[in-house]
Amino acid sequence: MKKSLGPETIVYPTPVFIVGSYDQDGKADMMNAAWGGICCSEPPCVAISLRKARYTYENIQRREAFTINIPSQSHIRQADYFGLISGRKEDKLARSGLTPIRSELVDAPYLDEFLLVLECKLVHTFDLGVHTQFVGEILDAKADESVLDEEGKPVVERIEPLTFAPGPNTYHGLGPCLGKAFSIGRDL
Amino acid sequence: MKKSLGPETIVYPTPVFIVGSYDQDGKADMMNAAWGGICCSEPPCVAISLRKARYTYENIQRREAFTINIPSQSHIRQADYFGLISGRKEDKLARSGLTPIRSELVDAPYLDEFLLVLECKLVHTFDLGVHTQFVGEILDAKADESVLDEEGKPVVERIEPLTFAPGPNTYHGLGPCLGKAFSIGRDL
Repeated sequence: MKKSLGPETIVYPTPVFIVGSYDQDGKADMMNAAWGGICCSEPPCVAISLRKARYTYENIQRREAFTINIPSQSHIRQADYFGLISGRKEDKLARSGLTPIRSELVDAPYLDEFLLVLECKLVHTFDLGVHTQFVGEILDAKADESVLDEEGKPVVERIEPLTFAPGPNTYHGLGPCLGKAFSIGRDL
Repeated sequence: MKKSLGPETIVYPTPVFIVGSYDQDGKADMMNAAWGGICCSEPPCVAISLRKARYTYENIQRREAFTINIPSQSHIRQADYFGLISGRKEDKLARSGLTPIRSELVDAPYLDEFLLVLECKLVHTFDLGVHTQFVGEILDAKADESVLDEEGKPVVERIEPLTFAPGPNTYHGLGPCLGKAFSIGRDL
């Protein structure tokens, strides 16, 4: 028996995207975004939704670029910290102990220590309400060599990504592989 | 040391959204979408991206409505099956053994057996390339009573949601809670 919860933004899983940008002085900033996801295969695009008050909002508008940095379980404290404080008030990179690297493709920094990053050029801005959706074309994905298999493809179990659960507001890792997509449903 | 993978649509995690719609004859259909996520808190909205060739694409355009159904681990075969076959060719609901329920709020069906569903009214359509993004306003979230705690809030561990990992194309569950958001980063 189903019960109505009202118009809640509740789905599982949501991502933990650490969004990298430069401010007007060229200072690197990172924020934590759960509202987002891949939104187009060709051109390859990823969407993130930000409130207008966010420091990252004006950074992305000005620079027309951002990065998506995928935190591993070992970065859970830094990932959460990036969502607690505004880059207006604090040099979050310095406090986090992580290292921003200037992208050679877009005007935004990515994190040296994170194992998977996307470099994105802003291509669309959609005002949806309290959130504005920025759509970035993915110009490159970069992964640490340690997470690549012998064919050069990322192994998700080596990345140990985080997910966010709205409602309880908890972070979780991924469990073991339960089956192959485009395959396990064939016996139906 | 990071290695370039090229412009790949690769992030972890991505969701496993089963998108419910009615076709022109009123037949319920379900498809599997990994490109999507919450995109606005107020009005509460969720985005899904579909190729124009998908049967669901014209269904949503015609009915201006869809549902998001969150599969549990126990539904992995049905969830994958919904992504293997087109509703043009097969009555997927009949084959799946699952039960479509007519939403009282929008012109779309949701799955009786799934533990968390969203009923959405189409509010924006954005053409991004090979994918079109449909933004739906969430008019209601519904959860099975068995997954609610004593305060009436969904317990993610009882839902046992699936996630999809692009690249290896594998399904995974969520691991145990690793920490509370807006909290575990405070000690930095």
